[in-house]
Amino acid sequence: MQAAILSIGDELVLGQTVDTNAAWLSARLAERGVMTRCHLTVADHVELVTEAFVRVSRDADLVIVTGGLGPTDDDVTREALAAAMGVEQELNEEALTHIRQMFESRGRMMAERNAVQAMRPIGSETLHNPAGTAPGIRATLGDAVVFVFPGVPHEMRTMYDLHVSPALPEQTGRVILSAKINTFGAGESTVAELIADQTHRSANPIVGTTVADGIVSVRVRSEFATVDETRSQLDATIAAVEAALGPLVFSRDDESLALSVGRLLRERGKTLATAESCTAGLVGKMMTDEAGSSDYYVGGWVVYSNALKHSQLGVPSDVLEQHGAVSEPVALALAEGARERADADFALAITGIAGPGGGSDEKPVGTVWIALADRGAPTIATRHVFIGDRDMVRDRSAKTALNKLRVRLIGAES
Amino acid sequence: MQAAILSIGDELVLGQTVDTNAAWLSARLAERGVMTRCHLTVADHVELVTEAFVRVSRDADLVIVTGGLGPTDDDVTREALAAAMGVEQELNEEALTHIRQMFESRGRMMAERNAVQAMRPIGSETLHNPAGTAPGIRATLGDAVVFVFPGVPHEMRTMYDLHVSPALPEQTGRVILSAKINTFGAGESTVAELIADQTHRSANPIVGTTVADGIVSVRVRSEFATVDETRSQLDATIAAVEAALGPLVFSRDDESLALSVGRLLRERGKTLATAESCTAGLVGKMMTDEAGSSDYYVGGWVVYSNALKHSQLGVPSDVLEQHGAVSEPVALALAEGARERADADFALAITGIAGPGGGSDEKPVGTVWIALADRGAPTIATRHVFIGDRDMVRDRSAKTALNKLRVRLIGAES
Repeated sequence: MQAAILSIGDELVLGQTVDTNAAWLSARLAERGVMTRCHLTVADHVELVTEAFVRVSRDADLVIVTGGLGPTDDDVTREALAAAMGVEQELNEEALTHIRQMFESRGRMMAERNAVQAMRPIGSETLHNPAGTAPGIRATLGDAVVFVFPGVPHEMRTMYDLHVSPALPEQTGRVILSAKINTFGAGESTVAELIADQTHRSANPIVGTTVADGIVSVRVRSEFATVDETRSQLDATIAAVEAALGPLVFSRDDESLALSVGRLLRERGKTLATAESCTAGLVGKMMTDEAGSSDYYVGGWVVYSNALKHSQLGVPSDVLEQHGAVSEPVALALAEGARERADADFALAITGIAGPGGGSDEKPVGTVWIALADRGAPTIATRHVFIGDRDMVRDRSAKTALNKLRVRLIGAES
Repeated sequence: MQAAILSIGDELVLGQTVDTNAAWLSARLAERGVMTRCHLTVADHVELVTEAFVRVSRDADLVIVTGGLGPTDDDVTREALAAAMGVEQELNEEALTHIRQMFESRGRMMAERNAVQAMRPIGSETLHNPAGTAPGIRATLGDAVVFVFPGVPHEMRTMYDLHVSPALPEQTGRVILSAKINTFGAGESTVAELIADQTHRSANPIVGTTVADGIVSVRVRSEFATVDETRSQLDATIAAVEAALGPLVFSRDDESLALSVGRLLRERGKTLATAESCTAGLVGKMMTDEAGSSDYYVGGWVVYSNALKHSQLGVPSDVLEQHGAVSEPVALALAEGARERADADFALAITGIAGPGGGSDEKPVGTVWIALADRGAPTIATRHVFIGDRDMVRDRSAKTALNKLRVRLIGAES
């Protein structure tokens, strides 16, 4: 079974919105052994959308479409699907009643323009949307089954779980399982060299590398006739890759670096506090992306101004003046001040020049000092120069700080 | 002139990575009056990529391709382009020398596998990559000009600016200008109703609405024969839309809600501090996403634990015990404690239940108290119940807090 994802919206082809739906859908389908043949994105234009419907339904058995189901004039997906099917549209009274009720349950009147959302191509089926006002549509186009959902991510996700997931066939014949092994601290070519024995395109399981936001991941995909064989081959390859990469590996699949640090802290019954200057809360945000983080993350300080560095974390004014906020002694003092005041086992401190302005010959943009205070060991600080724009410098600073703590927790410091 | 964007990578069609390149490229092209006809994404598979090259070069005059130029066996873009062009590949010695030098400048030896990055289809041109080791390729395929860049966003962006932007024709005939007007605080259908007079699909300028991460935006696209006419029609429509939406509007184009708040603070010479519990630094991170934010954002506290709420911001222990951390008196005390300790003009405090666990009948998941302390006015707190997953609850909490300050700064409180 092969799928195609069709995303519809002017905002997508104008580049005003990044399409996250296609990736989410492909990941869900891959979990069920359905490979996505392509993602195609076109504007809110009846002829283009009609042509796209025809095109993707030729190549795939399953087509999932998002966007263009709203109440406004630029929502043309219903019309285009009808055109691709060669049929007229009809009003579904039941769907109209449901839309009215959705508005009433929110204490609002349905605007008349919303009635168009109850239209569907003749011969298609209306799909219930428990998360919003726009119903979805299920239709057959050529040999393909087509599901059409709103583009709003949480509505689309709810409807996928409700309508597509139960309709997918149980896997027979070939079983596909995949895994991702995430590393931090080395470049992609270094990682590729370390696992060279595993990466041959013809091999099964297939092993490949990708980089996203500073994280180098190794993907493994295993495909055999039985679940047992697929699983055991996958596990053997994962073990070989992890052995080759050693302490570079921080997690598998979707576990973030922050969550892997949280897991290690929880296992050891330890707590963390933070003192952030240039990252201004990013490490705190990352550490709390998952529920349950209060077990190990107590909180911290966003010491963006020098006044707060001094008044809240006790960095001496003369140190700030003599060395500047981006310096080893300030990083050390921030980490120690935060650890002591929060009574935590560890504290991470970050102070740097995220740019684009503020750099000098001595301290170019991207210069960041990262310190780790540890209840049971001397505080250490390291200097880094990160390449990239402001977002990248802040992201890499936060991740490098987290990785420093991770390496300390697993006792792998060189 | 019409463009097509082709993104190549297993990680994209497996849903492991969200493609941000296509949106970035489309936005840059739209600024130059080049409309993107489609985005197409396919796996690292020679036949699929070859077919995709042929397909998109039929529909577009300009094809921009990202991904699959790395040194590993799953990087098949060079081979597929050669196949689509019907030619063999050749080694470009100059490019090979450059790749070796890139490695040397970073104090590393070039791995032999990197040599494949100096290959190109015969008849194509090698494009300099100042940001990384993989050179790009420029080729002609049918009537289309094809640019191939690495998938790493900052390399791709650098190469677009260097190679594509200068090659785009000056606009002649039709001039296209577009704008986006961003609102917060009302749903999409309410916004659509308010601007109903402006949204008719046949009109020029075209007006449409989109929603992304809680922000409802109105897009305006104007297309006339001269720059003056296009600009004046665009400006007139923007003025009409903004008049209809009033204080819901916080910015135009790419200015974030946090940056618009920062701009208002700077104009008024005021400063902000934050006290964040469930958002744990997200507001601080948002307020500092742009350089120069130290003019108005002094910093704050991530008071994730109750101990820090008490020890650092003076929330009385009996108040925490009696009302719980997610309560009006705690929100008020956090905001006042942060404002006073930071000696700031304003402070925002957020305390809530982001979920998925931790809810109760009285305080369901999504319950969030937001307080605003103001040097010149009484502190106020409001209760919200946000719908969605943990990420959404935290994102909407942060934005609602920022919007509360924005409305205070423009004096538009109802």
